[in-house]
Amino acid sequence: MSEGVREFDRDVAVTRVDEGVYEADLAPGWVVGGGVNGGYLLAVIANALRHHLPAKPDPVSISAYYASASVPGPARVRIEVKRDGGSLAIAAAGLWQGDELRLTTLAQYADLDRLTATAWGTPHVTAREPELPDRERCVPTALAPAGFRRASPMLDRFDMLVHPDQIGWAVGEPGHGGTISAWFRHHDREPDVLSLLQVLDALPPVTFDLGMPGWAPTLELTCHLRHRPAPGWLKVTQTTRNLSGGMFEEDCEVWDSAGVLVAQARQLARQPRPLA
Amino acid sequence: MSEGVREFDRDVAVTRVDEGVYEADLAPGWVVGGGVNGGYLLAVIANALRHHLPAKPDPVSISAYYASASVPGPARVRIEVKRDGGSLAIAAAGLWQGDELRLTTLAQYADLDRLTATAWGTPHVTAREPELPDRERCVPTALAPAGFRRASPMLDRFDMLVHPDQIGWAVGEPGHGGTISAWFRHHDREPDVLSLLQVLDALPPVTFDLGMPGWAPTLELTCHLRHRPAPGWLKVTQTTRNLSGGMFEEDCEVWDSAGVLVAQARQLARQPRPLA
Repeated sequence: MSEGVREFDRDVAVTRVDEGVYEADLAPGWVVGGGVNGGYLLAVIANALRHHLPAKPDPVSISAYYASASVPGPARVRIEVKRDGGSLAIAAAGLWQGDELRLTTLAQYADLDRLTATAWGTPHVTAREPELPDRERCVPTALAPAGFRRASPMLDRFDMLVHPDQIGWAVGEPGHGGTISAWFRHHDREPDVLSLLQVLDALPPVTFDLGMPGWAPTLELTCHLRHRPAPGWLKVTQTTRNLSGGMFEEDCEVWDSAGVLVAQARQLARQPRPLA
Repeated sequence: MSEGVREFDRDVAVTRVDEGVYEADLAPGWVVGGGVNGGYLLAVIANALRHHLPAKPDPVSISAYYASASVPGPARVRIEVKRDGGSLAIAAAGLWQGDELRLTTLAQYADLDRLTATAWGTPHVTAREPELPDRERCVPTALAPAGFRRASPMLDRFDMLVHPDQIGWAVGEPGHGGTISAWFRHHDREPDVLSLLQVLDALPPVTFDLGMPGWAPTLELTCHLRHRPAPGWLKVTQTTRNLSGGMFEEDCEVWDSAGVLVAQARQLARQPRPLA
């Protein structure tokens, strides 16, 4: 890990400019293909909300609806608190560039430590940690073709090591299982609740594994942050169970190095079109 | 089926009173336990949005954040369109009673027929239709104790026939599998996109099956409407895979009589507290 400010923290930084209005500078390093990564955008908004609700720093749930493609450069987050009482707060926040709305969100904020401390009974977790081979047997996205990497500088922000059985699409042989799993680590920073929002939207669309290499625009993405992650490598898995009618749902799970399912997301996206 | 206006349609009716403002009258028939059913409330909001966006009648995705418990009686829905262009519209809508916000939503609206007509390729559906025994072997909620039914008039709005292996909780013997499935039919009406929103939040909390009979307050509920349902009985299944830290996620699927997965929902809810 390098010294000083980590690049993720630098890139999600916000400055308060008015009541409920925060400025951000969307960093070119989070571009992937034609746009700025949706998970990174969500982390920028979540960081503004955290500044706005200091007693309730954690986005227990946040739902994003994507309106237009963001570009690197200045942006504003506008926040409206809908309810703030007891242990929970509900707020709406939108990210704008000039007059263009990029995405709009609703979020439930709390202090995760306080919420989890009041839990009773034994956890009931039937979700299963993804079975990933050792990291040296997985395929680093650093091996992606140079042209692809130039169009996707986001890939330089983290180490992502994909399950060798789920990366056949990279050589034109998709597995058709509908799942992509990977080891994941931001390269200069341990995970926390804020960075998990980026992780929940970092993997390639699961449609790659279904033989559909095109862009899959997200209509809606909801993230649930359940536990603070332990330091170390994360295991991330994305899967779809219902691609039909031109859309698909994509479920993402993030497991930490202690084997805890720390975050879940589901998105609804449009099915990719055939490449021209 | 009776003649005339169906009770669901009567109870979700809205009247425009100003630009983006609609009045509704929350019907006592949708009370369940201490509050008004969250899926019914969502259908009221979705109906107002449908009136407001006539060219895009279907809530492809709608996310609700619950702020306070609703009561039967007058309510207002306030709508703000965030984006309306091409085949999709994004809108925010809140439901208020007096000065109290009950729930606030974001939604993506479209014409489902138009969206699905542009789909290409073969669907890829690995989700499996719930295996429910014949209806005569399932357990109707009409058999619930009279006291419970008096506190939950919602149970008179539909026929719900629960899988006999997943209703042990009703006699103090929960199955601990984390799944509840049922046959479902509104008693005077065929399903459509609007009524599916109610169906997605109609079953008992899956925590009943985990031996936690208390109320499980929903923090967030997102519904994806994927296809128009065929007439007839629906199969509905709810499951949780991650109850921990005082919260649980609950996934709901609705399958129509043609065997199509027509709607999916996920909610984040707080774990029930032990009954006093």
